[in-house]
Amino acid sequence: MTTTADTADGRTGNWGRWGADDERGSLNLLTPDVVLAATQACRTGKVYNLGLPVARYGTPVFPYRGAPQRLTLTSQTDEAMNAAYGALPGVGANEDLLVLAAHNGTHMDALCHVYADRQIYNGRSADDFTSHNGAPFCGIEKTGGFAGRAVLLDVAGHQGVDWLEPGTNITGDDLEACRAAAGVDLRAGDILLVRTGWLDLFADVTAKMEEPPFMQPGLGASTVDFVVDHDLAAVGSDNAAIEVIPFDGQFLSVHIELLVKRGITLIEHLVLTPLAADGVKECLFVAAPLLVTGGTGSPINPIAIA
Amino acid sequence: MTTTADTADGRTGNWGRWGADDERGSLNLLTPDVVLAATQACRTGKVYNLGLPVARYGTPVFPYRGAPQRLTLTSQTDEAMNAAYGALPGVGANEDLLVLAAHNGTHMDALCHVYADRQIYNGRSADDFTSHNGAPFCGIEKTGGFAGRAVLLDVAGHQGVDWLEPGTNITGDDLEACRAAAGVDLRAGDILLVRTGWLDLFADVTAKMEEPPFMQPGLGASTVDFVVDHDLAAVGSDNAAIEVIPFDGQFLSVHIELLVKRGITLIEHLVLTPLAADGVKECLFVAAPLLVTGGTGSPINPIAIA
Amino acid sequence: MTTTADTADGRTGNWGRWGADDERGSLNLLTPDVVLAATQACRTGKVYNLGLPVARYGTPVFPYRGAPQRLTLTSQTDEAMNAAYGALPGVGANEDLLVLAAHNGTHMDALCHVYADRQIYNGRSADDFTSHNGAPFCGIEKTGGFAGRAVLLDVAGHQGVDWLEPGTNITGDDLEACRAAAGVDLRAGDILLVRTGWLDLFADVTAKMEEPPFMQPGLGASTVDFVVDHDLAAVGSDNAAIEVIPFDGQFLSVHIELLVKRGITLIEHLVLTPLAADGVKECLFVAAPLLVTGGTGSPINPIAIA
Amino acid sequence: MTTTADTADGRTGNWGRWGADDERGSLNLLTPDVVLAATQACRTGKVYNLGLPVARYGTPVFPYRGAPQRLTLTSQTDEAMNAAYGALPGVGANEDLLVLAAHNGTHMDALCHVYADRQIYNGRSADDFTSHNGAPFCGIEKTGGFAGRAVLLDVAGHQGVDWLEPGTNITGDDLEACRAAAGVDLRAGDILLVRTGWLDLFADVTAKMEEPPFMQPGLGASTVDFVVDHDLAAVGSDNAAIEVIPFDGQFLSVHIELLVKRGITLIEHLVLTPLAADGVKECLFVAAPLLVTGGTGSPINPIAIA
Repeated sequence: MTTTADTADGRTGNWGRWGADDERGSLNLLTPDVVLAATQACRTGKVYNLGLPVARYGTPVFPYRGAPQRLTLTSQTDEAMNAAYGALPGVGANEDLLVLAAHNGTHMDALCHVYADRQIYNGRSADDFTSHNGAPFCGIEKTGGFAGRAVLLDVAGHQGVDWLEPGTNITGDDLEACRAAAGVDLRAGDILLVRTGWLDLFADVTAKMEEPPFMQPGLGASTVDFVVDHDLAAVGSDNAAIEVIPFDGQFLSVHIELLVKRGITLIEHLVLTPLAADGVKECLFVAAPLLVTGGTGSPINPIAIA
Repeated sequence: MTTTADTADGRTGNWGRWGADDERGSLNLLTPDVVLAATQACRTGKVYNLGLPVARYGTPVFPYRGAPQRLTLTSQTDEAMNAAYGALPGVGANEDLLVLAAHNGTHMDALCHVYADRQIYNGRSADDFTSHNGAPFCGIEKTGGFAGRAVLLDVAGHQGVDWLEPGTNITGDDLEACRAAAGVDLRAGDILLVRTGWLDLFADVTAKMEEPPFMQPGLGASTVDFVVDHDLAAVGSDNAAIEVIPFDGQFLSVHIELLVKRGITLIEHLVLTPLAADGVKECLFVAAPLLVTGGTGSPINPIAIA
Repeated sequence: MTTTADTADGRTGNWGRWGADDERGSLNLLTPDVVLAATQACRTGKVYNLGLPVARYGTPVFPYRGAPQRLTLTSQTDEAMNAAYGALPGVGANEDLLVLAAHNGTHMDALCHVYADRQIYNGRSADDFTSHNGAPFCGIEKTGGFAGRAVLLDVAGHQGVDWLEPGTNITGDDLEACRAAAGVDLRAGDILLVRTGWLDLFADVTAKMEEPPFMQPGLGASTVDFVVDHDLAAVGSDNAAIEVIPFDGQFLSVHIELLVKRGITLIEHLVLTPLAADGVKECLFVAAPLLVTGGTGSPINPIAIA
Repeated sequence: MTTTADTADGRTGNWGRWGADDERGSLNLLTPDVVLAATQACRTGKVYNLGLPVARYGTPVFPYRGAPQRLTLTSQTDEAMNAAYGALPGVGANEDLLVLAAHNGTHMDALCHVYADRQIYNGRSADDFTSHNGAPFCGIEKTGGFAGRAVLLDVAGHQGVDWLEPGTNITGDDLEACRAAAGVDLRAGDILLVRTGWLDLFADVTAKMEEPPFMQPGLGASTVDFVVDHDLAAVGSDNAAIEVIPFDGQFLSVHIELLVKRGITLIEHLVLTPLAADGVKECLFVAAPLLVTGGTGSPINPIAIA
């Protein structure tokens, strides 16, 4: 990764752009002024939950991560526990324990999630990560939650299909064409949401009890310039990895360009179809990851206010 | 619970107020118009993460729930896995698996969380809850995420202390006095945030390696009228259970009045001191629970935009 | 279940046979004398591990239980943790955390595992089970580990096949024919091991990347008399449920006859092919479940000494 | 660790003694002949479970590992799930999911558990361990379960106390004095069980709601010669780490001498008092770890047959 440059102009990379100690990357663009302006993107006040259901079945899961599990910690069968605290008969509390892979379902990547050339964002060594304590730098608790103006580019809708074919390499030109057709501008610090239709394909295939394809539509290498030119704060999509699968170039090539080199937060498996169905082009977008100390990411249910 | 009334006026309860099938309770007050108006509460655009760290140590944990665990699913030591997919040397991904009790740390209660007289909100039977599938009604996925105007009542600050003494019963009059002194109005559909200072007490005590007290300051029974009179959408606080411990009346008495009878969503263990320190009185509040199918609650990192 | 009789002769059921408070069922047959005699079954001293690998892949998993997960708790990357305790450079410890469904893989059922007519073994109410604390009666910690003489009936081998076809209903006559051909006697308190070849079928099918069939060979209803006539202490097999799938009669019919009515411990997914390959007919069998308080079963690696 | 020698005589280490590829260490001593002879140690046929309860409370837990959790996967509340498979009313199954740190409670160390000089047993590199897949060499599935003759040295009982004081350094001479007084011989391939009384101290202290001490009685450095002279196959004790805490020498010094240099399997937190109370001096000992692929250890419930 010889291009993780000593220059920090966004073109070759953002390392150093917000200081040698920075762990938030492009979320630094979301200054209070930018956030305040973003609240003006709300037109209707309609609230959208962009997270997938968290459940054992019905959502995309990579087997090595295990499916999410909601386990009952207490229920009505435990009422006698409460009686010991003076509870009246018929009174009790239901509680859960969750077993969740951070990168299954709808989730946000921490800047420590991917490394290249043995370095994570801002030049920290990938070898500082430890099994027990996780990431000493760029953990999900360092970026934390954020809010900003999001622009939805419904690439599938723009191309007149329910979903892009698996393996479709979305180009920078595709994004620009979609943006222009939508008549929406993109500003520095915006959050880009790209709808490929993947989750609709997934639902369609699994409803037929078929296996979803390995290949996925997503951003190709040529979209990096688009993201950089607009100096975006974050990128989200409805597919598993933002980027096209198989990867366009090396393993995790778009992650490396955006997350590693530029510290641009990525959010995956977003439920974007309801926004698209309502014709939403811009909205206030709020991402609120769990502040897991040393965490590499978080399951998340981003909120859009249109 | 003879007062879970056939009348549904908020005074004796909200069952039926939003229909016999309603599972969202007072969050129904957050209509798009109300949400759109709430965005006007933003003055500075400063974003606050109101969630506690999710970590094995340093935050309040009830032992029967177990402490949160971040476990490493993949790290730099697994690089050979990526090589099988064509990754270049030095390229890889760190991932986590989380084991989390839904009601530890900062969390949001689903309306199915508590039952009384063997019924949850809106008269559903508590016995419909199942170990494997959780709540068929009023699960956390049914309320989902929401946004609205929040008003912070810093009761500890108003009383000139860092924290209220453990066991302090905050009354409706205390809330009104605090509100009046702050000069802030409360509107139907607002989210009430009550700062008791508990988390600061917890931090102080545990820094001294002492055991935190069992008793906690919190809302007493007399605050129910305050909440009902203002027709609030949700209530959050920095303590473990919104309500005072020991409970003011029966086991979970304030939960029963607010959550069970009125379907008012409760959010606990909020980090409110930074908002108070900045003198924030109102803000846009966004709560984004994980949409756990059948879930009784969710760990959460609410976002406030001041 | 009108036949869970007031008589307790093994024919109609064993409730009350070892006292009204008994929670060990037929393991009571394994008196010290019987165990001491069982040590005489050893001829070669060769030790067999009868447990399947515990791993994310490659072994039978029912999806609702989730696959087993070994997660790294500490590793060589955490060496600095040890340094705080004075460890020399290059010294450390690797540790795991396990997430295991008790009834995946090779496992032993507790007597509380199945209920019929709302009762578990010995007439305890199925409704006493609680989410948080599990089984107050007949939990796996009550039966505990045991040792005894096991007799292997290799039904597949006796029939000259690698495995019985999925759905094959093994009859009492099949067992007797196999026993007679092997020339091995069965005594009161023995442990019966039945080899169907199912795990070999599973391995064969999954090696071809095919889905294993739903149906499984196993014990049919007519084997109950065989087990009762010989007054056996426990029954193990290499399939998922001891009994044939689809069930021979009602849901879990053989579990109900053996486990519920007679308190006969069942052990499933045993790796029996190496024993069969060596021509072992009898052995000392040791089952050592984890003593999980209130547990409904335990993953297990039974040991056979031939 | 300059003494992990090219000589492999047990004195300076066992690396290479059973071949360069060996992953079982001193368990190789447990040949079928040795095991067959071990069955002669049984005199009464009485079976002892040497495992602690697996429960959230009441047993020793190091906080960084989290307490064990038994979670209900299915219960009587899920009966409708079974009805879908044709279950009669009142019929169902209770199942658990377990979350267990491998080295809490009674457990067996895999030979990969500890490393020194960046090497595990037999000279494999400690750096080959990976977060996702665990140990490629010397995982618990490689040693597996075993059986042999165990000799109990009740050091506390021999010294006339209920338990040795925390921090007591048991010497080789202490072991020899205890053995001689017991009049029991030790043979190559035996399993040594050392009772310090620690679990009784733990029970006594926690019953008084006091915090158990950090220090523990256990084997000091001088016991290594005793173990080596007798060419033992495994060592178990009732304390947390076999060895005295604080360590006698460097961090994990006895682990390094026995487990790392000599491949001697260690089993900790054994419940030995019932054996001692019955005056058992030798027995058949069966250890049956879960065969966790790549695992660093396993919770275990060893069985002794006296």
